[in-house]
Amino acid sequence: MNVLELQQIGQLPVIATRPMPEEIAGTAVVRLHAAALNHRDYWIVQGQYAQIRLPAILGSDGAGEWQGQPVVIYPALDWGNHPTMPGPAFRVLGMPEDGTFAEYIRVPRANLFPKPEHLTWEQAAALPLAGLTAYRVLFSRCQLQAGERVLITGIGGGVALMACQLALAAGAQVFVTSGSEEKIRRAVQLGAKGGANYRTADWHKQLREQAGGFDVVIDSAGGDAFALLPTLCNTGARIGIYGGGSGKINGLSPQVIFWKQISIHGSSMGSPQEFECMLHFVQQHRIVPIVDAVFSLAEGNAALERLAAGEQFGKIVLAIDGSAAN
Amino acid sequence: MNVLELQQIGQLPVIATRPMPEEIAGTAVVRLHAAALNHRDYWIVQGQYAQIRLPAILGSDGAGEWQGQPVVIYPALDWGNHPTMPGPAFRVLGMPEDGTFAEYIRVPRANLFPKPEHLTWEQAAALPLAGLTAYRVLFSRCQLQAGERVLITGIGGGVALMACQLALAAGAQVFVTSGSEEKIRRAVQLGAKGGANYRTADWHKQLREQAGGFDVVIDSAGGDAFALLPTLCNTGARIGIYGGGSGKINGLSPQVIFWKQISIHGSSMGSPQEFECMLHFVQQHRIVPIVDAVFSLAEGNAALERLAAGEQFGKIVLAIDGSAAN
Repeated sequence: MNVLELQQIGQLPVIATRPMPEEIAGTAVVRLHAAALNHRDYWIVQGQYAQIRLPAILGSDGAGEWQGQPVVIYPALDWGNHPTMPGPAFRVLGMPEDGTFAEYIRVPRANLFPKPEHLTWEQAAALPLAGLTAYRVLFSRCQLQAGERVLITGIGGGVALMACQLALAAGAQVFVTSGSEEKIRRAVQLGAKGGANYRTADWHKQLREQAGGFDVVIDSAGGDAFALLPTLCNTGARIGIYGGGSGKINGLSPQVIFWKQISIHGSSMGSPQEFECMLHFVQQHRIVPIVDAVFSLAEGNAALERLAAGEQFGKIVLAIDGSAAN
Repeated sequence: MNVLELQQIGQLPVIATRPMPEEIAGTAVVRLHAAALNHRDYWIVQGQYAQIRLPAILGSDGAGEWQGQPVVIYPALDWGNHPTMPGPAFRVLGMPEDGTFAEYIRVPRANLFPKPEHLTWEQAAALPLAGLTAYRVLFSRCQLQAGERVLITGIGGGVALMACQLALAAGAQVFVTSGSEEKIRRAVQLGAKGGANYRTADWHKQLREQAGGFDVVIDSAGGDAFALLPTLCNTGARIGIYGGGSGKINGLSPQVIFWKQISIHGSSMGSPQEFECMLHFVQQHRIVPIVDAVFSLAEGNAALERLAAGEQFGKIVLAIDGSAAN
């Protein structure tokens, strides 16, 4: 079968041929129709990830068929038994285990879930990691309620956009930030009430004028701007952190946090139960993940370049035609 | 009646005479037997508090008698209707409303709770604000469970010590930090498993060696040291913040927070319901608040000096003899 293989750090992944995986007890070999990229894939290619083992087939997101059934794949392994937090063996799918940038993948059967019927293969592949991460941070961790005001920073990224769509479906009022006016406009078209460009000096004042205060903030930037988020919060607000692209947080006031009784919740991925709840929610509300662009498996490096450029609005997907496999 | 009155910012409070408060509908005039100091009182004397209105009788903590019944006073007003967070009218007792550094105080009747029978007047007066703050941050906010490992920073302060006592009674394993070896020794005598002097460069390494990792951390310092706390945490840990004496938090890693699924909970005071639960817990476990020193009302400034010096281990209390009142 054809795979996109990362063979050495400092090089780009290449198309390679690997033997078909065998279906052993408790596993399923899924014929993939689509996969999607995540920043994790890019960081591994850059050598910026813990415990990289090569060669590796990257890719955490996949949708395909198993025994004639359309499935999406839970994008992690060995969450463990505790519903609220992962155990020590927990890991994301795709390195060290073979990932979804391939014509076939072998995963534990427990990782297979029915594909939401209203989604295409590309849309379904765009869902797992972003949908799971967004669902857990919004609902399990930050306990978002209908009618609350939510700020989602860095709109355009896969998780941020999915969080926007889930929060809107839950009846929240959504505001966004972005470094791109165009992305803010597109979020407003989706249903967001407003937003501010974080490259402007007074973005936090603009948000306060538009929204008053926020009950929930979902952030993946961190950095110095994070310290302004509690000042934009209402009493009892929850701030979810699922990433930290801008680095360490500085200048955070303990006084604002304790006076306003704010909670800051770190969140990463989610449990199989949360994945199932997320799929149910997506099906119930007919949510369609936004696909930014579709590349073929052979165009994987162009897809990675688009991810690195940060201009996407939605998920970058690989369409996989496994007809030439074996 | 005699009161300790703060008449002007930049001056120390002085003993003054005020007319006896009248008991109007819904209120109780309590004859106070003891009051206790909190850092809030000191900050107001220093002019470092929002919206100071003078003259004022300070003091949030009090125990005394009403209609022959021994009572302790819930140390705040107008929490509001929401169980998990205070409403906009919420305020701490003692400035602008007359506080407990007086022979009598008028409070809403709903603020009176039966004094735990196993406590002296001085011990009972040491309980309200510290006990409430510690109870809410440990149990309501950080959901401490029996068997968990807890780190309490800055042991010796009223809330930190009370958190230590409550956590021990709840069956947790408690570790502490302090700038004083003597205070660490005294915490170990109380039942703490260990501790580290935060003035040593490797205090965090000492704690990791002693405890492995922490499930709950209770902090009132903030500052640069705060960034090390998540690195000492287990997956799923909760960090409670009820103060920020060392100022703004710098160098906090979003990655550590989201990978470990850590929650950081700001917490301040607590609701009347939490106060009632705290009193019940204290009664059930026969917890005795630690009184560092007892001064008379007339010695109030010596008491404030002792608080400012930071050498106390436990609460600084004012014994009040109201026999000469009216």
